[in-house]
Amino acid sequence: MNRKMVYYLIGRILLLESGLLALPLAVSLYYRDGGTVPFLITIALSLCLGFLLCRIFRTDNQVIYAREGFFITALAWLIVSALGSLPFVISGEIPNFIDAFFETVSGFTTTGASILNDVESMSRSMLFWRSFTHWIGGMGVLVLMVAVMPNLSGRTIHVLRAEMPGPTMGKLSPRLRDTAKILYLLYIAMTVLELILLVAGGMPLFDSAIHTFGTAGTGGFGMKADSIAGYSAYHQWVIAVFMMLFGINFNLYFLLLMRRFRTALRSEELWTYVGIIFISTGLICWNIMSLPAHRDFSESIRHAFFQVTTISSTTGFSTVNFDTWPTLSRMILVLLMFVGACAGSTAGGLKVSRIVLLFKTIRREIRHLLHPRSVTSVRFEGKPVDSATLISIGTYFSLYIGLFAAFWFLVSFQPHFDGVSNFSAVAACFNNIGPGLNLVGPAMSYSQYSPFCKIILALSMLFGRLEIYPMLITLSPSAWKK
Amino acid sequence: MNRKMVYYLIGRILLLESGLLALPLAVSLYYRDGGTVPFLITIALSLCLGFLLCRIFRTDNQVIYAREGFFITALAWLIVSALGSLPFVISGEIPNFIDAFFETVSGFTTTGASILNDVESMSRSMLFWRSFTHWIGGMGVLVLMVAVMPNLSGRTIHVLRAEMPGPTMGKLSPRLRDTAKILYLLYIAMTVLELILLVAGGMPLFDSAIHTFGTAGTGGFGMKADSIAGYSAYHQWVIAVFMMLFGINFNLYFLLLMRRFRTALRSEELWTYVGIIFISTGLICWNIMSLPAHRDFSESIRHAFFQVTTISSTTGFSTVNFDTWPTLSRMILVLLMFVGACAGSTAGGLKVSRIVLLFKTIRREIRHLLHPRSVTSVRFEGKPVDSATLISIGTYFSLYIGLFAAFWFLVSFQPHFDGVSNFSAVAACFNNIGPGLNLVGPAMSYSQYSPFCKIILALSMLFGRLEIYPMLITLSPSAWKK
Repeated sequence: MNRKMVYYLIGRILLLESGLLALPLAVSLYYRDGGTVPFLITIALSLCLGFLLCRIFRTDNQVIYAREGFFITALAWLIVSALGSLPFVISGEIPNFIDAFFETVSGFTTTGASILNDVESMSRSMLFWRSFTHWIGGMGVLVLMVAVMPNLSGRTIHVLRAEMPGPTMGKLSPRLRDTAKILYLLYIAMTVLELILLVAGGMPLFDSAIHTFGTAGTGGFGMKADSIAGYSAYHQWVIAVFMMLFGINFNLYFLLLMRRFRTALRSEELWTYVGIIFISTGLICWNIMSLPAHRDFSESIRHAFFQVTTISSTTGFSTVNFDTWPTLSRMILVLLMFVGACAGSTAGGLKVSRIVLLFKTIRREIRHLLHPRSVTSVRFEGKPVDSATLISIGTYFSLYIGLFAAFWFLVSFQPHFDGVSNFSAVAACFNNIGPGLNLVGPAMSYSQYSPFCKIILALSMLFGRLEIYPMLITLSPSAWKK
Repeated sequence: MNRKMVYYLIGRILLLESGLLALPLAVSLYYRDGGTVPFLITIALSLCLGFLLCRIFRTDNQVIYAREGFFITALAWLIVSALGSLPFVISGEIPNFIDAFFETVSGFTTTGASILNDVESMSRSMLFWRSFTHWIGGMGVLVLMVAVMPNLSGRTIHVLRAEMPGPTMGKLSPRLRDTAKILYLLYIAMTVLELILLVAGGMPLFDSAIHTFGTAGTGGFGMKADSIAGYSAYHQWVIAVFMMLFGINFNLYFLLLMRRFRTALRSEELWTYVGIIFISTGLICWNIMSLPAHRDFSESIRHAFFQVTTISSTTGFSTVNFDTWPTLSRMILVLLMFVGACAGSTAGGLKVSRIVLLFKTIRREIRHLLHPRSVTSVRFEGKPVDSATLISIGTYFSLYIGLFAAFWFLVSFQPHFDGVSNFSAVAACFNNIGPGLNLVGPAMSYSQYSPFCKIILALSMLFGRLEIYPMLITLSPSAWKK
């Protein structure tokens, strides 16, 4: 393994992080809220470590393979999160390091699960940094590095592939760096659009920025105890629609931009995703209208749509405490947690494309059982899918369910927590959503979990965001062997 | 499709059922408990219908294929259960047909989930029939038909394959009929051995028969409100050990009988199964010893071992109300529900061999990600596994999880039931175990569910027992087309 290159690239990422930290530093200078020193210390540390790593491990052999890609991705995310949690610890706003690490991992992985019991007492700059990590993590730290840093030769495709969600990576341009740039430009354009719409509706600029970061990264960190419930219906609709939009494959936006409308609108994954959202919204709306609190149709449909898009896109904002809804509605939300949104978006979960492919494989298997001599191939988005990909997707699914069971098992070492809380906590963290049910419902926090469980849950977020393999390989001792 | 042959064979099965019903009839005559008339009516009905079907659909073209095999299996199990529930309805001991159908399906599928709130008030002959369905369903109705009925030419292998659990079917003898006979002889021998051991320990003969049927079929219907809790430690140990033994692939017993000890003891599945049982027992024993009720080690280890074997073998007896145990112990039991026991046994669940194969496929996938050019094959029980089988197993797993989610979703239409009850109810029915947690825990019954949910749960038992495809294909309209 090309270890030098692994550590060298991690050095580069630390330099990038110190640059990103300048933004919350500016916020703290503007609001004079005491965040300046903590951010300065973190920036200094990040710069020193970054320079040191780049200096020591500079190498002429820049060639890296898949294994290095997995290592770089997993280590980068771990280190960026560890360093990113320092401002919270130094400022004393989250004094315990494990809590701060949980919160920062939850930010970068766009999970949005919080250990804070009183988010409204946080200082502005810390709130800003917390939500900004969503925005960075949404499109990816390594994608950003490839986009903005010059002279990165070597096979960075392995790094991108390991970080970008979905079974396959779409190349928007023959040059990788251009692909990364296009993705970030689209991302910035949509972010700015949402920000403008929120401000236009009368939301203060700071609040708008916080909620836009949370939406764009499909993260879900807010700044109010009741999340989005206190804002107007207009703001709730804007955020709900953008949550849905950020759950769509960014390649489709690129196709729209290239005026290839027919190709974009023929996407099977897109229509399945939209179909799932509308059917779930309808069912939940019908189900909650039996509650005394939800007699009004326009309100019910808004709350149903918001909660469905927040879970489908794996964001985690809320406009009501859906934990008080009937079992059927909560059940639908739990199932949506696992489905997630489209591949190539900023969302988590299994991804709609994988579900569609699994479904098609099952259909083929049944046809094969009935007509053993028939030969039929599985087609997706108009193209045939080879059997290696089908095995890979089946394997990913088994691994995903197996890991889910393992995390659920480990979290149940926590005393005095019930099965629903633990199940939904793991589902919400592993799928990068945020709030679960019962003791980790939208009105609660993760603060009651033991430090051991917090670490397990933080790891599950990283496993989920990086789609399992980078973390699994980096944590298995055999992969470290030469 | 050869429809004539499908209906003809179902006629044969009804004739067989009328013969099997003679046994509870004899019990009712012996105890004079009012079961005589209900059983006579059912036998008469079964005979008439059977003769009629055999007469009308007699055909010279006895060739059947996979599709017919699935149809015969699914329809046979549905009709045998519907007829088998008549004695309960006619006698008035379970007056509601849906309840009686649930109870009988639960019996034949060796689930053991009950709608009875007061099992001790049942008459002896009904208790006997209820438990006897476990014994029949354990090894299979169609296997029995092939074993005992002469002149069944045609390709009965498709019928056997559809009914026998596990990813592959072991042929013990070149002649199918001999395979079926050997399996039933082994089954009878082990049943008699357990019966003798229970009687020798002082359990009344009737009780011993009931519990032996429940153990052999890995069913779990008992005759006391507290299941096995009231019997002596000796009886609990005997039943626990036999539950474990009936969860082992019957091919291994055949190998032992043939004195091929080395081949039998080299089985990967066997040792994984035994390992899972011992590790789970150890963990639970350690976990429950913190409870005031379980300070005594020998008692804790007995209860832990009993509950682990009852769930692993998907039987469902209990010696304690494990729903009062700590979350960790209950969590282990829930995970074991999905694993199940060995393929080719009378148990349900995913089966250990599938878990082992999924695990090995994952390991190969990771190796392939690290070394894209390496070619490694997955080996199981000393033989390489081809990629079609790997796709099949991945597909089966996806389908299994997908159906689990679908059943869970449908059952949540039940008002006032919590997520844990619904989740564990589906897990316990789909995996053919019986008791779940909370409202369907060992001290409760399924009587509170709505008729709709009872039908869904009964269907889930049949899906689980017949390993999905027969039921799925028979219920899909497209398969009925010519």
